[in-house]
Amino acid sequence: MDTQEQFTIPRLGEAKVSSPIKMSLVDGDKIANYVKDDEAILYDIDIRKQDLQEAAWKPRQMEKAGPREKIYFSPSHVHAGIVTCGGLCPGINDVIRSIVRTLWYRYGVKRITGIPNGFKGLLPEYGFSPIELDPDIVDDIHKVGGTILGTSRGGGERTGELTDTIERMNLNILFVIGGDGTQKGALKIASEVLRRGLRISVIGIPKTIDNDLAFLQKSFGFETAVGRATEAVAGAHTEAHSTINGVGLVKLMGRDSGFIAAHTALAVNEANFVLIPEVPFDLDGSNGLLVHLEKRLAERGHALIIVAEGAGQEHLPPTHMTDRSGNKVYNDIGPFLKDRINAYFTEKNIEVNLKYIDPSYIIRSSRADATDAYYCSRLGSHAVHAAMAGRTGMLVSLVNTYYVHLPIETVISRRHTVDPEGSLWRDVVEATRQPVLMKNR
Amino acid sequence: MDTQEQFTIPRLGEAKVSSPIKMSLVDGDKIANYVKDDEAILYDIDIRKQDLQEAAWKPRQMEKAGPREKIYFSPSHVHAGIVTCGGLCPGINDVIRSIVRTLWYRYGVKRITGIPNGFKGLLPEYGFSPIELDPDIVDDIHKVGGTILGTSRGGGERTGELTDTIERMNLNILFVIGGDGTQKGALKIASEVLRRGLRISVIGIPKTIDNDLAFLQKSFGFETAVGRATEAVAGAHTEAHSTINGVGLVKLMGRDSGFIAAHTALAVNEANFVLIPEVPFDLDGSNGLLVHLEKRLAERGHALIIVAEGAGQEHLPPTHMTDRSGNKVYNDIGPFLKDRINAYFTEKNIEVNLKYIDPSYIIRSSRADATDAYYCSRLGSHAVHAAMAGRTGMLVSLVNTYYVHLPIETVISRRHTVDPEGSLWRDVVEATRQPVLMKNR
Amino acid sequence: MDTQEQFTIPRLGEAKVSSPIKMSLVDGDKIANYVKDDEAILYDIDIRKQDLQEAAWKPRQMEKAGPREKIYFSPSHVHAGIVTCGGLCPGINDVIRSIVRTLWYRYGVKRITGIPNGFKGLLPEYGFSPIELDPDIVDDIHKVGGTILGTSRGGGERTGELTDTIERMNLNILFVIGGDGTQKGALKIASEVLRRGLRISVIGIPKTIDNDLAFLQKSFGFETAVGRATEAVAGAHTEAHSTINGVGLVKLMGRDSGFIAAHTALAVNEANFVLIPEVPFDLDGSNGLLVHLEKRLAERGHALIIVAEGAGQEHLPPTHMTDRSGNKVYNDIGPFLKDRINAYFTEKNIEVNLKYIDPSYIIRSSRADATDAYYCSRLGSHAVHAAMAGRTGMLVSLVNTYYVHLPIETVISRRHTVDPEGSLWRDVVEATRQPVLMKNR
Amino acid sequence: MDTQEQFTIPRLGEAKVSSPIKMSLVDGDKIANYVKDDEAILYDIDIRKQDLQEAAWKPRQMEKAGPREKIYFSPSHVHAGIVTCGGLCPGINDVIRSIVRTLWYRYGVKRITGIPNGFKGLLPEYGFSPIELDPDIVDDIHKVGGTILGTSRGGGERTGELTDTIERMNLNILFVIGGDGTQKGALKIASEVLRRGLRISVIGIPKTIDNDLAFLQKSFGFETAVGRATEAVAGAHTEAHSTINGVGLVKLMGRDSGFIAAHTALAVNEANFVLIPEVPFDLDGSNGLLVHLEKRLAERGHALIIVAEGAGQEHLPPTHMTDRSGNKVYNDIGPFLKDRINAYFTEKNIEVNLKYIDPSYIIRSSRADATDAYYCSRLGSHAVHAAMAGRTGMLVSLVNTYYVHLPIETVISRRHTVDPEGSLWRDVVEATRQPVLMKNR
Repeated sequence: MDTQEQFTIPRLGEAKVSSPIKMSLVDGDKIANYVKDDEAILYDIDIRKQDLQEAAWKPRQMEKAGPREKIYFSPSHVHAGIVTCGGLCPGINDVIRSIVRTLWYRYGVKRITGIPNGFKGLLPEYGFSPIELDPDIVDDIHKVGGTILGTSRGGGERTGELTDTIERMNLNILFVIGGDGTQKGALKIASEVLRRGLRISVIGIPKTIDNDLAFLQKSFGFETAVGRATEAVAGAHTEAHSTINGVGLVKLMGRDSGFIAAHTALAVNEANFVLIPEVPFDLDGSNGLLVHLEKRLAERGHALIIVAEGAGQEHLPPTHMTDRSGNKVYNDIGPFLKDRINAYFTEKNIEVNLKYIDPSYIIRSSRADATDAYYCSRLGSHAVHAAMAGRTGMLVSLVNTYYVHLPIETVISRRHTVDPEGSLWRDVVEATRQPVLMKNR
Repeated sequence: MDTQEQFTIPRLGEAKVSSPIKMSLVDGDKIANYVKDDEAILYDIDIRKQDLQEAAWKPRQMEKAGPREKIYFSPSHVHAGIVTCGGLCPGINDVIRSIVRTLWYRYGVKRITGIPNGFKGLLPEYGFSPIELDPDIVDDIHKVGGTILGTSRGGGERTGELTDTIERMNLNILFVIGGDGTQKGALKIASEVLRRGLRISVIGIPKTIDNDLAFLQKSFGFETAVGRATEAVAGAHTEAHSTINGVGLVKLMGRDSGFIAAHTALAVNEANFVLIPEVPFDLDGSNGLLVHLEKRLAERGHALIIVAEGAGQEHLPPTHMTDRSGNKVYNDIGPFLKDRINAYFTEKNIEVNLKYIDPSYIIRSSRADATDAYYCSRLGSHAVHAAMAGRTGMLVSLVNTYYVHLPIETVISRRHTVDPEGSLWRDVVEATRQPVLMKNR
Repeated sequence: MDTQEQFTIPRLGEAKVSSPIKMSLVDGDKIANYVKDDEAILYDIDIRKQDLQEAAWKPRQMEKAGPREKIYFSPSHVHAGIVTCGGLCPGINDVIRSIVRTLWYRYGVKRITGIPNGFKGLLPEYGFSPIELDPDIVDDIHKVGGTILGTSRGGGERTGELTDTIERMNLNILFVIGGDGTQKGALKIASEVLRRGLRISVIGIPKTIDNDLAFLQKSFGFETAVGRATEAVAGAHTEAHSTINGVGLVKLMGRDSGFIAAHTALAVNEANFVLIPEVPFDLDGSNGLLVHLEKRLAERGHALIIVAEGAGQEHLPPTHMTDRSGNKVYNDIGPFLKDRINAYFTEKNIEVNLKYIDPSYIIRSSRADATDAYYCSRLGSHAVHAAMAGRTGMLVSLVNTYYVHLPIETVISRRHTVDPEGSLWRDVVEATRQPVLMKNR
Repeated sequence: MDTQEQFTIPRLGEAKVSSPIKMSLVDGDKIANYVKDDEAILYDIDIRKQDLQEAAWKPRQMEKAGPREKIYFSPSHVHAGIVTCGGLCPGINDVIRSIVRTLWYRYGVKRITGIPNGFKGLLPEYGFSPIELDPDIVDDIHKVGGTILGTSRGGGERTGELTDTIERMNLNILFVIGGDGTQKGALKIASEVLRRGLRISVIGIPKTIDNDLAFLQKSFGFETAVGRATEAVAGAHTEAHSTINGVGLVKLMGRDSGFIAAHTALAVNEANFVLIPEVPFDLDGSNGLLVHLEKRLAERGHALIIVAEGAGQEHLPPTHMTDRSGNKVYNDIGPFLKDRINAYFTEKNIEVNLKYIDPSYIIRSSRADATDAYYCSRLGSHAVHAAMAGRTGMLVSLVNTYYVHLPIETVISRRHTVDPEGSLWRDVVEATRQPVLMKNR
């Protein structure tokens, strides 16, 4: 287990400016309190009882997020920028809206600039014009999905040029809404900024619909994604249930982590097979998917399969390609499975009615449900508080139900995946009653 | 701070029966693991960094929920009952469905009985007939709100008679889905059962749409309630925004705790005043609600007020009544505020168009959104695992993102309320920009 | 039966300008055709077979709506205004959007002004500033309910002052979105305009969530209203079904016409009693509602009642008040029924759990569902075509599935109500199985 | 124009039995009236004014649907069957529910049998067991999509065997819910029944999500389909709007008729190109889709394309296959367009981000929205009234806003398509501003 040092958050300098937000320092006056710098949240809380007896036992801590009494920047001089990168995810506009409103109304920051179309909006060759932001402009944006700033993949590796533009724009703060690859780019900018001796805070708001970033309790948009996925899977169930040997096959997001598939299966509680990247499976053989599917159809006359996009890649030829975000391009498991299942039953001369659903873009483009809406609202505020307090190279996030600061460096060092031996997957296997492992030894 | 002893879970006896659920005891085999009895979750994780240095510092722990290798009951002999009490809440049917399916499919328990209409279904004088449950009967029940078993208030105080019926029915397990008052009743039954030397497990699944039970991360149905509330509040905003000096006034649930009001305000991000039971407010005077509302209307021409049902009771005559669940009956703050606001502006000869919305029953009767659906599904399974392992007098719940066992006795000893000085209320005040405290001194 | 003459549409003068919209005059070229002035739709189509044999039989006709080859106004000189009056209704923003886009993109009209807050926006004493409209401003407005222009009641009777402002603004066209009372005001303006020798087209788009305007197949927003009402009633059903002698009581819109109540009852198919203004009912006596309700509860243990707001006014003291739109203010039948039902069963010592739901503002403030969205879109276009062709004093509407022009004068001369002997109410009585007439004698 | 004779409805014999439904024969008593056999609805109502002057002018009439005073069958002896065939469509369960409830509660028919899995359920070789139906079983089925009876394609051509089974089951009435091909099968059964001298009524309820059946005002499920399609298209718009040169491409249902595509385009009002089977288009050339798409992207940076599945088949190689319903299998225009668009812009070295959405099964499996729910409810009742009155070989439907009887023979003789020169397509072209015809001469 790593030590707690790794959660140290870089700071631009001492915070000496009195915050324009009026709060309290005492308990009992019914007035909200500032967060103090020594407040922390324990991370390692899943223990064996004897752990506590050991003198050496030391749970890791994370810095608590929230408004500070003393801040680093003088609000009236601040120029803040916001950029959104990578694929769509419900809630991006909610985060943008919250950042703008917190800057404007709480801190009095009136110069807020939207960078158009991701990091490319900072690269002069594309010629995109920055977008001025204020509370009026963002007033209704949370009512639609997507990002009003536009987004793109790639560009984050061109640290020097990006930093040049940021410097030229006289930005003091840059909020970066994006995933793994994007935050790597943000971290490099934060380092380059420090190397050049600039005083620019770079704060990330992690965006990953797959919920695959380490340490985070959940990423924003995830609950909405499960909600939309649940609707699509319910449709597949209806289709399967209404025909002779109906098979509903739904591909859900999840390149390396099967969280959406797993939670959706638990929400609909009608899936019979859930396939995720973390748990390999055989197609053929007596313990393969096809035989188990045949048994299920013989027993009940219909079946429902959820497959995460990254599952079963071992059955597909590699594409040897990467997308503009630097992610390996996967082969498409959905049509592959569809064809294999149809071929299997055709050969056996068994009538099967397979309906394949790929709801990916419908899910990604959804506006945020209420659960994500209040989460995004709070993430945005906490990002602003962190920036104004002079933090940099960090992400705001929720950990163990508390809002905390996390160093980007640590978060991107690994990935969050479904533990095949943990309680989530256990509950999925229980709910689907699929074989614990569909491998022929 | 209390010590950890209080989280000790009562047990019926030693668990010696091998579980019919096949899992693993070793790590690394990609097969889900049983939960061991010494696994625990830390509760006190919001700390000051120096706390960890102190030798005396000892965070409280809670027993981890999940399937055990050895269980207490022989599944083939088990007769389980389920009862639902109190007001409606999204997700009750999901919990029932999960309990039935986990009992039936995982443990092979085939005698499952639904108690109709709450505790009254156990009182002979009502003459209600028990309902036999199996997976077919519960197959689609999560697609509608409410409870298929029916519910009622009261009856939980008649411990002797309730236990008589339970004994006569030869129940080995009773699952009690209900709130504060209901769990008090469940605890008394559990004690009476032990006093009589019976071997009956009483397991509670906490149900409180207000999210006001102590220790719980959140109660099931809460996210759905916020979702539906958000829709109603958005409607009020539309009404207010579309007329001259439009005022939208929405009363939301929250007798003693303003969680729904607070989260809804953060989700819609358009409310101007949120009134909750935890934060008193004045109506009149220069720092009263009415003057602030007048200012808001003068500035923007419309306003949106969210009021929790328990807020502002100090302004209303007490009813001196209690309902059948034993809760104090509150006076209705909604129409009171509506009349006071209208009177104030009529007197000032200012045209105001107030629309009052009380969406309470629409919210309570909603089916569960996906987020609550998977939560209910997992709560139900964990309740079954706890019962089969011989626990009793306890609740299953989510704490700091983990499923745990909590003694009923501890949970009902206090209430969970919004801390006016904590981060949730702070973020609400920031989002609404309402005065920190609307009190004239 | 009236003769067809009454459907004659007033015209400002001869249409001599060639339309900038390029269409075809010939069939078979796969290019849309202009509508010719002699195209008409039959209104009286519900006949007895022998009718057709009678020489004297002559069904009424209505002028067909749509783009004309020759128009009255030169688009480049046109200044158009839009005003929205009365209560909210789903789809108003969709109509506004369609009008603006059709004017701008199809006819090249670039001067479009929104009148704020209803007719009051035309009365100088209020001092409201007109709102310039273009396609960018209206781009996303259909995604929220309400009206971006704001609305108010009253003012429509001040014809002279209203016309003064319209003249002063140099409006050539005024689109009036509103109900009965509003269209009366619009007609007076149209007449005053002609009296003054001005060339201003006044075109109404009928808005009545109650669907109570004569001749119209259905008013916009009606389907959405039924959709939202259905959700609320489903919630009431869930509440009723989940408790002992549960009674769900839902008040729906419908001052003089029970269309929403009737259609909602058919959509949910779970209501037991539907009360509408057109069908009187007794409360007491052996054929009164209360006795029938008691029977229903005895048989099934729950009941669902839908009451239109104008139903049963004979049981209530008259208010002797009118609202600013000139409508009689009704007493509130909802709480009255609630109290009477509770009193009845309390006296009989029968436990009843009544839940009362009034979803009115949630329904009114909803955005339009797809069915209303395309309807509003087409209504708006047809309104523009009519205006550009020089029609005035008329409404666009759907009659027998076709878009037509209707003279305001005729439409406001009577009201559309549910025929107690017609097929709609017959089907409601069949679906609810309520007594054909709950009257003692 | 055809003469009215073609709308004559076959009857099994004279209706002599008094209906158990108590209604009125007089006007003015506030009691619903029976429908008389000479009541009719005019069909040809879109006229030129001079038509009415011509003596020869005779609009076609359709028999009005509804309960008769005298019926053909003695309810106590009736055994009714219901079968559902072809693809899913929202509302099937609503129709089933309404048929069962009207039979049971209104006529007292207590023998109702569901035929499982379409016509195949009547073919002994499949061995499916009939399903007994009553109001309890169908109570909640309208809350889920699909069909509780199951469905399949094909089998309808085996008239002799189907009639044998129907005869063996002693069915007196068969309700057939299905499309074009299914109703052809139903008609053949009706004829065979008469040939054998049997007294069995065969009543069709037309089901076609594409809305492509002639004479019908709209088919059930159509409004819901447009609703779900609108949501999917809104998602595509969000995707397109949020990226650099984003192109949203959505394939909607519509094999031969573009009604869903056309209405969806009017409902979202954000599509730039709508492609339907009725209007051919070129891909290449100066007036081809690709060039117009390029222009649109150059102007606005994003574009939205809706394509009906049957559009542009001229660009694809024919499959030379038919499905089990006898429909030609089309090649898949969606991926084809996607590839062609990507190839075009790749060659031009223009970055384009195309997202392709195929929401077909999500739409088909949806439960019915309220608008379809009340429509299905009324269709089901009218089907029962027609059957009990001894009609056969007919469909119930809505025409010009009235419920009528239509002979199957006439309806299946042609198809309902979007008229490229009519008002619907005209309004689509206006709303999208796409070229009137994308053909290079």
